[in-house]
Formats: sequence, C-alpha cells, structure tokens
Amino acid sequence: MLSKNKVKLIKSLEYKKFREKENLFLVEGEKLLQELLRSNFTIRAIYATEGWMHDNPETYNKLFPIIEQLTQQELEKASLLKTPQPVICLVDIPQKIFKIDNLQDKLSLVLDSVQDPGNLGTIIRVADWFGIENIICSTDCADVYNPKVIQSTMGAIFRVHVNYIELASFFQSCHSLNLPIYGTLLDGENIYKKNLTPHGVIVLGNESKGIHSKYHAFISNKLFIPFFPEGKKRSESLNVGTAAAITCAEFRRRVSENQ
Amino acid sequence: MLSKNKVKLIKSLEYKKFREKENLFLVEGEKLLQELLRSNFTIRAIYATEGWMHDNPETYNKLFPIIEQLTQQELEKASLLKTPQPVICLVDIPQKIFKIDNLQDKLSLVLDSVQDPGNLGTIIRVADWFGIENIICSTDCADVYNPKVIQSTMGAIFRVHVNYIELASFFQSCHSLNLPIYGTLLDGENIYKKNLTPHGVIVLGNESKGIHSKYHAFISNKLFIPFFPEGKKRSESLNVGTAAAITCAEFRRRVSENQ
Repeated sequence: MLSKNKVKLIKSLEYKKFREKENLFLVEGEKLLQELLRSNFTIRAIYATEGWMHDNPETYNKLFPIIEQLTQQELEKASLLKTPQPVICLVDIPQKIFKIDNLQDKLSLVLDSVQDPGNLGTIIRVADWFGIENIICSTDCADVYNPKVIQSTMGAIFRVHVNYIELASFFQSCHSLNLPIYGTLLDGENIYKKNLTPHGVIVLGNESKGIHSKYHAFISNKLFIPFFPEGKKRSESLNVGTAAAITCAEFRRRVSENQ
Repeated sequence: MLSKNKVKLIKSLEYKKFREKENLFLVEGEKLLQELLRSNFTIRAIYATEGWMHDNPETYNKLFPIIEQLTQQELEKASLLKTPQPVICLVDIPQKIFKIDNLQDKLSLVLDSVQDPGNLGTIIRVADWFGIENIICSTDCADVYNPKVIQSTMGAIFRVHVNYIELASFFQSCHSLNLPIYGTLLDGENIYKKNLTPHGVIVLGNESKGIHSKYHAFISNKLFIPFFPEGKKRSESLNVGTAAAITCAEFRRRVSENQ
C-alpha cells in the first residue's frame, strides 16, 4: 500500500527544489534498475508490482528486504512517466566533491547552459560510450536528476560524473593545469583539420545561443563540424547532442588511429 | 477571432489521422515560419498576434492577404506546444511521388521503425547539415508531420524529402541499382576501418531493437561506431540520433578528404 504522503513525495521529485530538499531522485523501469544495481548509488526505497516480482525472481531476492509491493494503479499514480514502469526506486543523490586534478590526462565535457533535459541525457550517454568520465555543467544547465534526463541516459547516469560549477573560474583552473580548452563554435575551424589532443575539455553551448561570448577568450581551440557539400550551407547549426556525439567520436578516432 | 471549429481543427492536427484527413500540418513559431517561407510548401492559413505583426512588418506585409490576427489567449488555446508561439501556420502536406532513380549517385538514409518523434526530427536535421536530400522510412516510423518532429527539425523538414515505403522491396530496388546498403549494427565492423562510398543508403534501426533481422541479409556493409577505450564496453548502444550523426559525419569526411 502506498500512502498518500508517499505518492506526494514521489510526485514532488519531478521538481529540483524537492529533489534537493529530500536528497532523492527517481529511477523508473527494469533497464535503469539493472544499471543502478551495478553502481555505487544507494537505493532508499523500491516499489514493484506483483507481476514484476514474479517475472524477476533473482532481482527480487536480492532486494527482498526493502522492496514494497504495489498495485498497477498505485504505480501509475506515483509514476512521472507517460508509460509507467512496473518498478520504481527512490535513490540517494550522491554527495560529490569535485577535484579538478581528476581531469588531468583525461578528456572531459563542459556544458554551458544546456537547457533541454533530453539533450543533457543524450550527452551523458554519448560521454559514457566514448569513455568520458566527467561532465562539468554551468549552474544554469538542466538538472541531472530531472526524470527526463535520467530516462534518456539509459543508465549512463550511474557511470558518468556530472558536476555543476561556475565556469569562469573552472576555465582558469584548466589553464593552470595546462588542460587544452576546445569549444564547438560556428566560427570555429574545421575539426578534421585541427590537432586534437587525447586530454583536455570540450565546451558545448546553449541550444539557441551557443557558448556565451564571455567564455570565448578561454577557448584556445575553436572547432567547427563542417556541413556538406562545402560552401552550401542550408541550416544554421546542429543540435547540441549531435554536435557532442560527432566531436567526441572524432577525438576518440584520433587517439585510436595514433595507437 | 478564431472560431471554435478552427480551434478544433488546429488541435486535431496533433494526430496523424486528422492530418491525413485534412491534408494539413501545423508549423509554429518565427524561426520555422522563416524557413517555411523559403520553401515550396503551401501555406493554407496563418495566424499571429498583434504584437508579432507589429514586430515583423516585412513578413507581415508579405503575408498580409492571408494572415489573421488573434489574441494571445486564442493562440494559447490553439497551440500544440508547451510554450505557445505568437505565430502559427496551417501548411499543406505536399504530394510526393517517390522515384528510386533520384537516389542514384547520392547518399540517403533509411529508417527502420524509428518511433520517437524527437529522434526523427534530429535525424532530419542531421541529414540537412550533411547534404542528404532523401530519407526513406519504414511505414511504422513516427510521422514526419507530427508537431514534435516539425519543431525538432528546426526547419530542415522543408528541405529534406521524407518518404514512407515498404523496406524489403526498397532494398531489392537498391540492389538492382547497385546502390550499396550500409547499416549500423552492434555486430558490425569498425566504421573507421571500412571503405565508405560517396553514394549508397545507410540504414538505422529502431530505438530498442535496432534494425529488424529480416533486413540484415540486404545489408552488405555492417558498420559499428567503436566505443572507447577499446575492449571496455559500458553501455549497450548509442541513441539512434547520435549514431546517425556520427555515421553521416564520417561518410562526408571521407568524401572531403578524397577531394
């Protein structure tokens, strides 16, 4: 039985304010649960239908002491998704201490004001695929524990570290660590003709405005993904998620080809 | 003044059934309107607020004979978007005759059961950036005139031709035209080590199931986007939109490098 208060608590996790107050976020569905169980994240509560328990005896046995049974109707009431899943978890938001030294000798992503939760989720999934462990977000990016972000990462959220930091001071620290700062900009140079190092940070900008001009001076390597055919531009730009994907793929291709 | 019947008509365009019945789709917002005006699509009706007319005298004068003024409240009632825009258009769905000969000597995309409207929109935008004029969709793909697709193409919809065709016979026609068929598959070969031709079709599959096994025999070139580092796979797959982006970018890079 799910009390009215519990339903209210779960529903409130759609909003950042309440996620921060409760220090909790919601994970829905079998696929994400499996990824969660392979991670170090702490499950505070888990709810599932009888049908799900019956179909997943192994997972059920592992979670037996904390799992609570719900009816389909109760789950539908609590779910934040259009298509409610038969299993949902309340998960602790981990406490993070960001150390810039962790970025040394690595490739990382920096997001400036990426607003759309779907885009943030896509970028986290891309980072995971290409072995990028750290994403640094400006404080006005979408919240990583937004249910839409969680769902669209397909589990990558449990492996990639996302930190919210004031970017100007972050870029200064990059300079003192000699970490090259790359950025995708419409006035950048053809990415395929640039030297790309195996370490550094790649900055991606807001969906409609790109990277804020106040950060341009920090970017030592301005990259542009060329359209095709050369000289025949039709659309203004690529979506930030696809730009992230093409850029990360190209950085990794270079490393692999030089090995 | 927007009559109740007009609001009902506009609202009904959220659904494919009614779009097909009326042969209309909805375009919302300034950015898409500008792209629409540069295209050959036919505007059947256009509605805007007084504020928009005042701020856009040039566009207003061009559209003056057909534009109707609405209040903000009326627009909000009619809009299909979360954030209603001050201008909306009803646009004719163009009649298309698909000729496979149009694909000869070109690079095209084929989508097998891509369900998410946002993904379809992203892929259309990617195609536009990389000068891919034609996308062939299986009949169970999301509908290209779905409002979410339209919005996420950012105008690319007015330049890229999207056709819905039964894929098995389409693939047979490709063979008779000697068009190479590429496909992204989890058991494919490293895309960076494969020969990629400047023409052909690239098949991308459903969000969770990939390309249907019944089509695998048609695919002569199975491609895989390598994760990083080699041998250390974390996530199962990339999102279909990002896979499309990386694949198209790589095909175009090869052409440009060989020129």
